[in-house]
Amino acid sequence: MTLETLSANLSFGGVQGVYRHKSAQTKTDMTFAVFVPPHDPGAKLPVIWYLSGLTCTHANVMEKGEYRRACAKLGLIFIAPDTSPRGNDVPDDDAYDFGQGAGFYVDALRHPWAAQYRMRSYIEDELPEIIAAHFPADRSRQAIMGHSMGGHGALTIGMRNPDRYKSISAFSPIVSPIQCPWGQKALTGYLGDDPAIWRQYDACALIKDGARTPALLVDQGTADNFLHDQLQPALLDAACRDAGIDLTLNMRDGYDHSYFFISTFMAEHLRWHAARL
Amino acid sequence: MTLETLSANLSFGGVQGVYRHKSAQTKTDMTFAVFVPPHDPGAKLPVIWYLSGLTCTHANVMEKGEYRRACAKLGLIFIAPDTSPRGNDVPDDDAYDFGQGAGFYVDALRHPWAAQYRMRSYIEDELPEIIAAHFPADRSRQAIMGHSMGGHGALTIGMRNPDRYKSISAFSPIVSPIQCPWGQKALTGYLGDDPAIWRQYDACALIKDGARTPALLVDQGTADNFLHDQLQPALLDAACRDAGIDLTLNMRDGYDHSYFFISTFMAEHLRWHAARL
Repeated sequence: MTLETLSANLSFGGVQGVYRHKSAQTKTDMTFAVFVPPHDPGAKLPVIWYLSGLTCTHANVMEKGEYRRACAKLGLIFIAPDTSPRGNDVPDDDAYDFGQGAGFYVDALRHPWAAQYRMRSYIEDELPEIIAAHFPADRSRQAIMGHSMGGHGALTIGMRNPDRYKSISAFSPIVSPIQCPWGQKALTGYLGDDPAIWRQYDACALIKDGARTPALLVDQGTADNFLHDQLQPALLDAACRDAGIDLTLNMRDGYDHSYFFISTFMAEHLRWHAARL
Repeated sequence: MTLETLSANLSFGGVQGVYRHKSAQTKTDMTFAVFVPPHDPGAKLPVIWYLSGLTCTHANVMEKGEYRRACAKLGLIFIAPDTSPRGNDVPDDDAYDFGQGAGFYVDALRHPWAAQYRMRSYIEDELPEIIAAHFPADRSRQAIMGHSMGGHGALTIGMRNPDRYKSISAFSPIVSPIQCPWGQKALTGYLGDDPAIWRQYDACALIKDGARTPALLVDQGTADNFLHDQLQPALLDAACRDAGIDLTLNMRDGYDHSYFFISTFMAEHLRWHAARL
């Protein structure tokens, strides 16, 4: 597998790189960003996976997330994948919340999406092998986090793989796509109508069905336009309480859905993960 | 004067706003960004002016500069103006380094630029009045900084107004436009061929002609593609040594011209300014 380096910039003593490779899962070129902090030669470092939200690429958090200072200090590798396959040969939709930029971290089952919209397997299986082969990553120390649709991705991928990810955190996550318009549209479109299949892509349903995680942190702004219709953190709070999962849910007064919010609390999330890695 | 709020986002406990107004200097709408940190009611706060480089708007440093954490902690207002007038009715040039996005912080003298390319007077005279009228700014405590072309702007505006700006800092500044291709093109294009007029827009010439500043800090990456042809910090170093100006010039090994560099050292610059305000 060839990894092409698109850019590499020294930042906070580490290297912020952007890389491209041919994906077996999506049958497209995929681009992702990795920050490797300063480290001793030969060291293996803990890894933070960051999954982005609707319309985002690898670049949004790389430019606006303000994670490098904390990652450099804490010695964390930070990985930011793209959110879907992309390209003229990839099926798309005019809406911002379906198709390219809106992969929803599922393996699609319906035509025309199924052949290339395989973001679950890309994030769970393919990209970890590439990271292991090309970066000084300690596979025994990994955490996963994300924002909005990527918060949904972090919650569901993290809960399905509790032995791999020691901790999960999210900013403004979609906690139950089954119960919100964004999720209902995406799950129907990519997966079809069988609700049994949907449950593996819904954090609250996964918890009800027995999934657990060692540690769970969520930050949610109270001025987020999507709070009540789409995100509904109370559903996750209730599911965690019923299941005995120790969720820390921080409602942040006056903060919205933007990276101005995420960047404010990014270092806090990274310190919380580092303490568990 | 009416100030239109285009956006206002809570971030690091303060407000990151973007504003638009009709400029008497440029005869266009001008957009700028201001971060106001958390503060006590009625307090007046010290101000950092940040001037951006070629091709930039107010948004580049707002998105990539990572200044809000330090400004919130230090209690600094951070102002990021645009770099030129813009619009279909504003003269432009196909080159990235002349015309819109490349105002070079001069008051142009030549047709067709002279009527609207008045970024010197906009930054020195017009925008400060708007800031004073709409934000809790302490005019007796101001500093100025910038990047590349904006470093040139900070150096020259700061040196021409040493009583107003207590300190000047720059990332990768153009220290002598008279002596580099970017500067020669811009000064000729906006001002004409008289080298006597150019000198007020050249930090090294201003120093030779007697300008001084209370405090001067420059950071420059050694892997910056523009270091040797355009930026030439050694010229500033020599001018300061001859004039007895206490310049701190940090050559940063391996860093380039990007915001990955700027963000790394932004907090250090802000602490340095805060100690002088």
